[in-house]
Amino acid sequence: MKIIDKIKAPNSVKQLNMDELSCLAQEIRAQILQVVKENGGHLASNLGIVETTIALHYCFDFSFDKLIFDVGHQCYAHKILSGRKDEFSSIRTSGGISGFPDRAESEFDAFGTGHAGTSIAASLGYLAARDKAGEDYFVVSVVGDGALVNGLNLEALTHSNVKPKKHIVILNDNGMSISKNKNGFYRYLSKRTAKRGYLRGKRGLRKIFGDSFISKALIGFRDFIKRVVKKDDYFESYGYKYVGVVDGNNLKELIEIINDVKYASTEKAVFLHVKTTKGKGKKEAEENAETYHGVGALYKSEAGNFSQTLGDKLCELIKNDNKIVAITAGMKDGTGLYKVENLCRENFVDVGIAEEFALTYAAGMAAGGLKPVVAVYSTFMQRAYDQILHDVCLQNLPVVLCIDRAGLVGKDGKTHQGVFDLSYLTHLPNLTILAPTTTAELEDALEYALSLSKPVAIRYPKSTSFLQDAPKFIDAPWNRIKEGEKTTILAVGPNMLSLAKEVAGEVDGVGIINARTVKPLCTKTLDKIKSTTIITLEENSVIGGFGALVGGYYAKENINAKVINFGVKDQFIAHGTIDEQLKENGLTKEQIIKVLNKA
Amino acid sequence: MKIIDKIKAPNSVKQLNMDELSCLAQEIRAQILQVVKENGGHLASNLGIVETTIALHYCFDFSFDKLIFDVGHQCYAHKILSGRKDEFSSIRTSGGISGFPDRAESEFDAFGTGHAGTSIAASLGYLAARDKAGEDYFVVSVVGDGALVNGLNLEALTHSNVKPKKHIVILNDNGMSISKNKNGFYRYLSKRTAKRGYLRGKRGLRKIFGDSFISKALIGFRDFIKRVVKKDDYFESYGYKYVGVVDGNNLKELIEIINDVKYASTEKAVFLHVKTTKGKGKKEAEENAETYHGVGALYKSEAGNFSQTLGDKLCELIKNDNKIVAITAGMKDGTGLYKVENLCRENFVDVGIAEEFALTYAAGMAAGGLKPVVAVYSTFMQRAYDQILHDVCLQNLPVVLCIDRAGLVGKDGKTHQGVFDLSYLTHLPNLTILAPTTTAELEDALEYALSLSKPVAIRYPKSTSFLQDAPKFIDAPWNRIKEGEKTTILAVGPNMLSLAKEVAGEVDGVGIINARTVKPLCTKTLDKIKSTTIITLEENSVIGGFGALVGGYYAKENINAKVINFGVKDQFIAHGTIDEQLKENGLTKEQIIKVLNKA
Repeated sequence: MKIIDKIKAPNSVKQLNMDELSCLAQEIRAQILQVVKENGGHLASNLGIVETTIALHYCFDFSFDKLIFDVGHQCYAHKILSGRKDEFSSIRTSGGISGFPDRAESEFDAFGTGHAGTSIAASLGYLAARDKAGEDYFVVSVVGDGALVNGLNLEALTHSNVKPKKHIVILNDNGMSISKNKNGFYRYLSKRTAKRGYLRGKRGLRKIFGDSFISKALIGFRDFIKRVVKKDDYFESYGYKYVGVVDGNNLKELIEIINDVKYASTEKAVFLHVKTTKGKGKKEAEENAETYHGVGALYKSEAGNFSQTLGDKLCELIKNDNKIVAITAGMKDGTGLYKVENLCRENFVDVGIAEEFALTYAAGMAAGGLKPVVAVYSTFMQRAYDQILHDVCLQNLPVVLCIDRAGLVGKDGKTHQGVFDLSYLTHLPNLTILAPTTTAELEDALEYALSLSKPVAIRYPKSTSFLQDAPKFIDAPWNRIKEGEKTTILAVGPNMLSLAKEVAGEVDGVGIINARTVKPLCTKTLDKIKSTTIITLEENSVIGGFGALVGGYYAKENINAKVINFGVKDQFIAHGTIDEQLKENGLTKEQIIKVLNKA
Repeated sequence: MKIIDKIKAPNSVKQLNMDELSCLAQEIRAQILQVVKENGGHLASNLGIVETTIALHYCFDFSFDKLIFDVGHQCYAHKILSGRKDEFSSIRTSGGISGFPDRAESEFDAFGTGHAGTSIAASLGYLAARDKAGEDYFVVSVVGDGALVNGLNLEALTHSNVKPKKHIVILNDNGMSISKNKNGFYRYLSKRTAKRGYLRGKRGLRKIFGDSFISKALIGFRDFIKRVVKKDDYFESYGYKYVGVVDGNNLKELIEIINDVKYASTEKAVFLHVKTTKGKGKKEAEENAETYHGVGALYKSEAGNFSQTLGDKLCELIKNDNKIVAITAGMKDGTGLYKVENLCRENFVDVGIAEEFALTYAAGMAAGGLKPVVAVYSTFMQRAYDQILHDVCLQNLPVVLCIDRAGLVGKDGKTHQGVFDLSYLTHLPNLTILAPTTTAELEDALEYALSLSKPVAIRYPKSTSFLQDAPKFIDAPWNRIKEGEKTTILAVGPNMLSLAKEVAGEVDGVGIINARTVKPLCTKTLDKIKSTTIITLEENSVIGGFGALVGGYYAKENINAKVINFGVKDQFIAHGTIDEQLKENGLTKEQIIKVLNKA
């Protein structure tokens, strides 16, 4: 019988002995490998944190204590250990469990995440609630090194100089960011990393004395913790006792330390610095963690074909214009910007998971005469909404936003849907918004955007649609693909354009316009439309996006036509395939034809 | 002749001697006092920074070097010294100069600001541009202690461990936040503050030796800077040489130090910690800086009548329900929450200027069982857009957002308009949005919001409109005030409701509905409207707000009525009176009647 089969309920892990725990780690790893191979998901980060997760479940009782992951992409072992072992194979599929912590899914997911930076703030909220209610659970926040430097985490770290007791922040330092990224905070932490000799010292003692009484006495818990607790003015100011650096893949040591830290936290909050090996256990992943999960990037990060094109085109443009600078926030692989880094390193910046900084930094660059192009996923760009508004658009600065993964994203689910960008961008004055449907249109859009010397957002999903000839953006904001007598479909983006083609293929008299400029609307084209029914299609919330803009224009101009908006419903869309999500939102040929027949 | 009259052009200050400079400081102070008395604006912060600003203009050439203020509310002396002395009396008035730095106004305003946290990021952008262009100007960022701990500044501080040369960050520490706020970063900095004895030592020497050769030799520039430069691991990791603490109201000392820091920055970026006295020069302001500018609050912060009501009502509710916690982000005076602090300190948190943290912290509290109420101005709430979306709404957590200063704000102008909140909120699933028009409705809205156990936003401007009887929100989302045959006006908020009354007073057959629930729409009422013309009025961008929601509903339900949306135009609205701004946006009786007559 496998050890993992003994994990029948939450807290089952507490009944295992050390040998069984070690064995369990291997079995969990094997299960994660197998399921991720099938369903996709985050591999390296989940492999790296297996022992830490087991140790946490061993030392705490998360039916009572709270475990809050930052980003949450590394929660797989936690899900397996907290009563979701049997559902684990359904992860990221429609109706199955989510790839991220989700309060609606389990009481063991104390706080839902997906974006970076939230764990310490949310933990402090829980702690305030606990103290007010007179309860006394522990709150453990697990933060990766990539996410630690997000502004929200930094705000939370510095908030108050007295942190609540029984609060433990675990820095899961897999060395990807700290060793390679040049962030100043990492440099500060790395000075501590250099002192891991303490741990080696312990192992040395054990080698000499074995697991004997003498050894245990010499390296007793209290003694040991004193040796890894370092005097640290900075964390002390933040209200934390700093403990580190601890080997996060040595289960026995980890359990000892975490038990001790748990005890210590009853007097003062603890910041525990744990070093793990990303991709641990899968040789390929371990040796090449970057392609499994790009440096600083927290998400599965293969570039789609739009992203590849963006990288290639930027390299081409930079060769002729050294003022163009490509900026990303921890997503160089997914956005295709790794190509710029490889070929034009001087014109590339990865600021880490700090979207706000990326945007204001870009605004400063533009004010100084550069031509910054910021490539970030739609769901992460929303973190810099005010920077786009207040720093870029208000000053009318020539910053180009490349909004990747716009639209429905499939298996990553609720927290990652790119279905709000048109809603959070269309009301920003001075901003032009383009939505190319093919890689050729993206290339053109990028050139056009750079020529405008004003803020431009270009949004696109991972994959392109069919290729088609199209005029240049500068000559025609929209591209009329087919004339329609009764009905005209205005489609935004490749998927919606494909859908429009499907509908027009079945219903007579349906025209199609590739509405590839979302703002400003091409009123010249709108004014010429003779159809009495206008259908807008967008892979974005039906509220406040392209359809609303078109409806507003018709109302304002007092044009007598029926405008029907199709878009994503006013609800958060869970994980599943993109096709399932399109269907769930009525973005199907059948649904459109049904509505058309009634109109 | 006054010294200030010699300031005819930018850089005139360079021709003055030390006595004249001291005199100038007093004259600038007098001018600021006089103009602020007339036009309103930020007093204490501008009085405190006069000497620092003079010293900066004396030491740098800002026709070449870049000076970037954080928030920018402290830029008055800078405006006077950079060629805008004569226009200064027009500050904050329509057609006059802005109360904040504005690139469109002067080349001496290198980067426009208004919100906190942007200065270091924007400076780093300029520095990247400078280095790429092979130029060699200095970039000086001036950050107040309140704004320093905003997440965006923390991201920028930690970004990279090698900061560009000729980059100087000046921390304008007026002690308001650092001494009183319990932020951990302040605690760290305050350890440095404790060492200002260095400066006293210098002054002591001068007392003994006078301004003699011996004194000068003893306290020579290089020697002196060595004594104030402290070994600081942390700032060193961030790539800065830390210099401090320097007396920011001692002009002579300041000029010496800044010249020296300028020189030092050619080798390594410098973080200069300057201590100033907020409200310096006006006894009343100096002794009571809080009422001139609340602790941590950066804006003129008198509470409007909605805000006063919020504070009172919260105190009343907290007395019966200890789970309610009032949270603000550095705006306790302006939002009325100072009342909660005074009467129910245990149920009050001011997180400082960290809006993102405020929201995720609140989400954590709500997950832990509390009932957080977050009160922030509309323009600052937009800084936490993703936290509202990802942490609050996605998890459907019972957090109540009190959005103060919603709508046009008058003299603060472009950066501070509260005209986007409906556009950035209406597309968020799970969110209820209320817009009370009277303080009585606000009280009811708050009780109703807390009863819903889900995310609710309540938006209101500074002032209420007329009082009227109204049913409870729970009984009627909207309040029909007058029946209309031909036209029905749906008005959001007190100003728009007043406007509707004015129109209905002049045109027959015009009905009025107080559309005090923006989302969900009261479809029951909408379905009953018989009028063929529907007018929506909102003090919010006409794009993506209430009017768009109503238009979308009519289109979806295929109701045959003309919907005309009135709202703020798709442009940034400069400073002026609220009446001027309403007029500029066509939100007047005359304009509405004109459109009605054509409809």
